[in-house]
Amino acid sequence: MWTFDNPPSKQLKERYGFEPTREWLDHLRLASVRFNDGGSGSFVSPNGLVLTNHHVASEQLQKVSTPERDYLEAGFLARGPSEEMKCPDLELNVLISMEDVTARVFAAIKPGMTDKQANDARKGVVARIEKESLDATGLRSDVVSLYAGGEYWLYRYKKYTDIRLVFAPERRIAFFGGDPDNFTYPRHDLDMALFRVYENDKRVASPAYLRWNAKGAAAGDLVLVSGHPGSTDRMRTLAQLEFSRDREYPTYLELIRRRLDVVRRYSARGQEHAREAANMIYGLENALKALSGEHQGIKEPRLLAGKARDEQEFRRLVASRSDWQAAYGGAWGEIAKAKSRHLERYDNLAYRAFSGYQLPETAMTLVRYVTEVTKPDGERLEEYHEAGLESLRFSLLSPAPVYPGLEEALLADDFRLSVEKLGPDDPFVRAALGGRTPAEVAKELIAGTKLGDPAERKKLLDGGEAAVAASTDPLVVLARRLDPIRRETRKWYEDNIQSVERSGGERIGKARFAVYGKSTYPDATFTLRLAYGTVKGYPMNGTEAPPKTTFHGLYDRAGGFDFKPPYDLPSRFVERKNALDLSTPLNFVMSGDIVGGNSGSPVVNRAGEIVGLIFDGNIESLVGRFVFDETTNRAVAVHTAAMTEALRTLYDADGLVRELLRP
Amino acid sequence: MWTFDNPPSKQLKERYGFEPTREWLDHLRLASVRFNDGGSGSFVSPNGLVLTNHHVASEQLQKVSTPERDYLEAGFLARGPSEEMKCPDLELNVLISMEDVTARVFAAIKPGMTDKQANDARKGVVARIEKESLDATGLRSDVVSLYAGGEYWLYRYKKYTDIRLVFAPERRIAFFGGDPDNFTYPRHDLDMALFRVYENDKRVASPAYLRWNAKGAAAGDLVLVSGHPGSTDRMRTLAQLEFSRDREYPTYLELIRRRLDVVRRYSARGQEHAREAANMIYGLENALKALSGEHQGIKEPRLLAGKARDEQEFRRLVASRSDWQAAYGGAWGEIAKAKSRHLERYDNLAYRAFSGYQLPETAMTLVRYVTEVTKPDGERLEEYHEAGLESLRFSLLSPAPVYPGLEEALLADDFRLSVEKLGPDDPFVRAALGGRTPAEVAKELIAGTKLGDPAERKKLLDGGEAAVAASTDPLVVLARRLDPIRRETRKWYEDNIQSVERSGGERIGKARFAVYGKSTYPDATFTLRLAYGTVKGYPMNGTEAPPKTTFHGLYDRAGGFDFKPPYDLPSRFVERKNALDLSTPLNFVMSGDIVGGNSGSPVVNRAGEIVGLIFDGNIESLVGRFVFDETTNRAVAVHTAAMTEALRTLYDADGLVRELLRP
Repeated sequence: MWTFDNPPSKQLKERYGFEPTREWLDHLRLASVRFNDGGSGSFVSPNGLVLTNHHVASEQLQKVSTPERDYLEAGFLARGPSEEMKCPDLELNVLISMEDVTARVFAAIKPGMTDKQANDARKGVVARIEKESLDATGLRSDVVSLYAGGEYWLYRYKKYTDIRLVFAPERRIAFFGGDPDNFTYPRHDLDMALFRVYENDKRVASPAYLRWNAKGAAAGDLVLVSGHPGSTDRMRTLAQLEFSRDREYPTYLELIRRRLDVVRRYSARGQEHAREAANMIYGLENALKALSGEHQGIKEPRLLAGKARDEQEFRRLVASRSDWQAAYGGAWGEIAKAKSRHLERYDNLAYRAFSGYQLPETAMTLVRYVTEVTKPDGERLEEYHEAGLESLRFSLLSPAPVYPGLEEALLADDFRLSVEKLGPDDPFVRAALGGRTPAEVAKELIAGTKLGDPAERKKLLDGGEAAVAASTDPLVVLARRLDPIRRETRKWYEDNIQSVERSGGERIGKARFAVYGKSTYPDATFTLRLAYGTVKGYPMNGTEAPPKTTFHGLYDRAGGFDFKPPYDLPSRFVERKNALDLSTPLNFVMSGDIVGGNSGSPVVNRAGEIVGLIFDGNIESLVGRFVFDETTNRAVAVHTAAMTEALRTLYDADGLVRELLRP
Repeated sequence: MWTFDNPPSKQLKERYGFEPTREWLDHLRLASVRFNDGGSGSFVSPNGLVLTNHHVASEQLQKVSTPERDYLEAGFLARGPSEEMKCPDLELNVLISMEDVTARVFAAIKPGMTDKQANDARKGVVARIEKESLDATGLRSDVVSLYAGGEYWLYRYKKYTDIRLVFAPERRIAFFGGDPDNFTYPRHDLDMALFRVYENDKRVASPAYLRWNAKGAAAGDLVLVSGHPGSTDRMRTLAQLEFSRDREYPTYLELIRRRLDVVRRYSARGQEHAREAANMIYGLENALKALSGEHQGIKEPRLLAGKARDEQEFRRLVASRSDWQAAYGGAWGEIAKAKSRHLERYDNLAYRAFSGYQLPETAMTLVRYVTEVTKPDGERLEEYHEAGLESLRFSLLSPAPVYPGLEEALLADDFRLSVEKLGPDDPFVRAALGGRTPAEVAKELIAGTKLGDPAERKKLLDGGEAAVAASTDPLVVLARRLDPIRRETRKWYEDNIQSVERSGGERIGKARFAVYGKSTYPDATFTLRLAYGTVKGYPMNGTEAPPKTTFHGLYDRAGGFDFKPPYDLPSRFVERKNALDLSTPLNFVMSGDIVGGNSGSPVVNRAGEIVGLIFDGNIESLVGRFVFDETTNRAVAVHTAAMTEALRTLYDADGLVRELLRP
């Protein structure tokens, strides 16, 4: 997970004899695409064609589907430009430049500042840098904190918002094996989708695209992955990890299980209910399995013991020089104290939520938006900085469908959870329910709100504070009532916990550079990173997992379960089986360090050609949030040969294949 | 692993609504075959055709092979009776009757006897019962100790020694995936072989045979397994388990690793060396993986903690009645003391060995045989009881080839091990080496011995004590010199350790019946047992293992490793792939309780038809030596559909298929 400004040149040269040029790296970076909702992709033709995973595309597939046409289930293929289907609210980003702004951020923090003052100053300077960059370049401009605050970088992105769906297979083959096989290997998924980027209603030119290598990756190959790993916690202090283990994971896991239960019950009510809930169930199951795996990992005594040893050694080295000790030595203790204080109001932070699903979240965002934008940029809540407003408005005004029934079920349960955890007399609970039952309140709110209509949202947004203050929309009314309570909780957290963690993190980041130099890459931050590794199996279940699977394995696993869901196949896979070359590689594993967010990342060879498509990690990779073990941690990818074979033989997508295979 | 006198009728009725009749059970028993060297099988036609595993047959395949014809590698098919190939030293047993002789054995042990006296008395009465039965019936008669000595049963076997090879596939498909995939699942092995039983040079009639169900087992089916599980240690005391964990397993594992190293080096010396060593390498690798898994299991603190809790509870219940406590309560403590004393001479017992391989073992057996048979039956070393002599002579006079080079390498290393562990001044070491190097001595012994010739062995056997005493064969001379030293060590063990463990075991066995009744089955003893379970997958590697695999999976796994050994396929599997129905089930798993020795056991359905062939357990089953966990412990079997399809489509064995499918 190396940043592109600091590629692993030494390792690539020593281990593989490979020396990528600056041009090679720039080309790969410019061909890499960030799916702003969480995911990665790449340009695979000069005409704006973008490859990603089906499970990255699935939110849009859900949104373009109707009760009559379920593209998630049935897949989609555009036969020509006119059929390419516009996505309601998909934003793609391409990283155009990176600039080190560490000195400027650090300069804003004056000696003698309290942690709270420093936190405010930091936020202020970050907002200024972003706004200046936006004004100067017109590019989306994000200041990113790396190495736990040891460095700050300004990342500028070209932003695309007219994205059209070109191809998606049926979910049952994209996600063959369903939740059981998710995060495991050997695997047999055609987890791909193709979009096309438009500007001004025309296909965009994308000269930096990855050439399609239909032969694909082979065992033993060096391969590289360019994508956007979401987040890791490898540089966190022991106190932070213990806090996660004991408090955050149990809380998240309970919440996910609870929501899953609500959504599954909703789904069981009928076919249309099931269609509406499909993608959410996927998301929750995915999160449950991922977080459970992470939690198992961090609960493993050996893992934390190793972390404790490393931290002890690090602190010992810091203490060995008095200037280091003076500058950095106190950070661990201060963070530990903050985490212990964090416990005091943890329940307030966790359960004073108003995010049941889309509509309550929208109401709260509207209420805050109109107020925040009236303030100086540096003083706003972080998510309302000027540089990010365009993306925020894009998502806020999305014409994607809302599902009131699902909204109501989730909101009611969120209220129920607040009552259970905070008690009926908590100010938030009182303000939300006013003594009535969660079910009554949720029903009334969702039945009464007009926020499902994007025009209504636009009216409030354009009308500003006055319009929002005057709104009688029940969700807006409630959001107004809850906002002060939630702001108070958040301010307490930012002033007392976040500020200490950021200040401490910054010092530890600096200490790490001082003691160890810049010998490794920073924790993942959903920014562009380069990973490398070998296509190879790993010890598993008493034997070896193979470097790759083939279409044979798909039919074996389906047959092994008598084709029962989630091991059933789309009919074309049954009817056209004999036309397929079953020995075609389907999925493969590589030893690179990737995590969630890398989904959809291209796997490239030394020539920079695309040979695979990252879509998952194996079960052993879940602990990768805390520690990377090359022995068993593997990224799982769709093989380009399988994509080519399936598009040609099963989907009759000859036009797409020609576009991909162009000389 | 229920004995056939005490089938799990209650469980079968309650869990599956299945009530097998006495006839059903008798038929299955009489169709079941024990491979005397360690393995199981069954009659699958009325003409003496016996199905077992390739890996059970492999020792005979090794023995009938020559430098010119390697049947282990190339497989074998007899095209008609004249081509059925006689095995040099294979003995098969069929269990004809079972008789409870507990009372008679217990009656021989008089009140006031010491453990040593009781041990001698027990051995005496067992020898008498066996001899009387042999004389009365002419059947092989074994007294078996069940429930750790809580019961004694006389098992009578019909014995067959003219066994001919009918069919074996190539090892690379029988053992596809080799050592890595051994003891794992999902699996893709055609681990089968067919023998035919002859008497008086004619095919034997086997009216009790299992009808071939070519459709085979399906997911969810109740299936039953009749076979000969070798041994388990589930009823051992905590002291015995700890002794195993700390002393026996490390010793065995070191020995196996060491031998494997010797044999692999021998194998690497050339193609013929590799051929000679092939089956031994398989056996050692198999043992290493099995014992490593068992050792991992017993080292798991939770396992022994559970055992400790169970034992504590059991002892508490025994202590709750004063008559029980008086009769049984002391057993655990006495065994613990004996195990601690066992340590004193453990190295003597382990390293005063003269069993490098076949020839030294033969020499030692000859030296003892001629002396032992002159004594009253009850006073002999156990393996020389009258009832077992015929089988012993059969194996001693085997015309199977010996490989002097391999003998020498192994003997030299065994001497080396004795020196390392016992020191140069140990009486055994001095007697064996006389100050010379292991290599010199081994070379001279193997070069000089004539015991490779069965006629030479017969001469000594027939000549009795005088002939053996007069022999100048260097191996016989050395065996004579070592025998007294080894006898002394063994006597010490039998009088001080074995006698206490047997006496204590008997009391604990009685206590178990008193406290818990006969609610479970006894530890495995390589006698016929009935297991039952469901064809079903299990949680594995973050997902579910499928109930079955198919030929598709074979080609997937081979392709996944680019057909590199041990994932290479016989050429017929490549050339005739298109003729195969690839969706045919290949292997499957069932939840029954089996262990090593069950290899080759038939899997039958409610109708008593054969639907599969046990050949392995999954990696989770290795801990089954100590504890059975139905959640993940699975038996792995070859599916009858795969055997039928392969015989017909790949091996052109239409005659065999007709014989199997007879109406």
